[in-house]
Amino acid sequence: MQTMFRYNWIVREQWYEWCEQVAYEELIRHRTGGVGGILHTLFHIVDVEWSWINRLQGKSDFQESFDSYHTLEKVRRLDKQFRPEVEAFIYAWNESLEKRPFYDPQPDGTVAVDAWGEIIRHVIAHQIHHVGQLSVWAREIDQKPVSANVIGKGLIQPDPE
Amino acid sequence: MQTMFRYNWIVREQWYEWCEQVAYEELIRHRTGGVGGILHTLFHIVDVEWSWINRLQGKSDFQESFDSYHTLEKVRRLDKQFRPEVEAFIYAWNESLEKRPFYDPQPDGTVAVDAWGEIIRHVIAHQIHHVGQLSVWAREIDQKPVSANVIGKGLIQPDPE
Repeated sequence: MQTMFRYNWIVREQWYEWCEQVAYEELIRHRTGGVGGILHTLFHIVDVEWSWINRLQGKSDFQESFDSYHTLEKVRRLDKQFRPEVEAFIYAWNESLEKRPFYDPQPDGTVAVDAWGEIIRHVIAHQIHHVGQLSVWAREIDQKPVSANVIGKGLIQPDPE
Repeated sequence: MQTMFRYNWIVREQWYEWCEQVAYEELIRHRTGGVGGILHTLFHIVDVEWSWINRLQGKSDFQESFDSYHTLEKVRRLDKQFRPEVEAFIYAWNESLEKRPFYDPQPDGTVAVDAWGEIIRHVIAHQIHHVGQLSVWAREIDQKPVSANVIGKGLIQPDPE
């Protein structure tokens, strides 16, 4: 589980570096699908990751909109600000939390009950899914997307022969 | 780990059902990004999943091209044919396999050594990434994509209060 968060953080950093090479207008241009743009997607990933980890801990989620974070620098700074709390939570994860219930009040008055293990996997898949969208938009502006490979990033050291 | 394979199989089935509602020309139309089309992407996901699981077991991977599988029915049939082997491997997974080395000869004559745990996570992320691409292409043809939510699919039963 921690492995996939580390994967996501590496890939996210590579997308920030990718953004440095692309014109700002392309980063904020409205696009079809997802949340509708490259930088907005990166903001959304940071927002959702932090919000879920806070909600699991009974704290409030992130309520600000992309309007206040519409530059690469601001998104990176927000990510950097949130990261220590997210890391602390993820590295403290253990098997006993997998089935812990999370009570999630719904707009219709009912309360959904979700396992923490399901929520944490949602956070992982959430970034990977949105990064898939970035990869299409990158090709639309004739740019090579960041590699999505999990293999070759040194995430798990194999046992010696 | 098994949880995310089950997630991927549910989402994949939902994309097959989604494809049933979409004109065939749209499924095979060439698109920008990824492997270049909706049905081709689903074929690619099935191919890569099965191929990695076979390679880990020292068997040969899948060598056929999309040209022979360019209908929804053929892709579904291939997936159904491969699934029992994939399931058997995934459900037999255990912690002791995480760091087992996989020796992967490279075109340049060197041999990469990757942990099995890294490869299996690559297979998971591979589908999620490509499904993100499908979600953009769906919106391009004014169709609502399949939900990528992990939460709410009943993947992990929370403990009773």
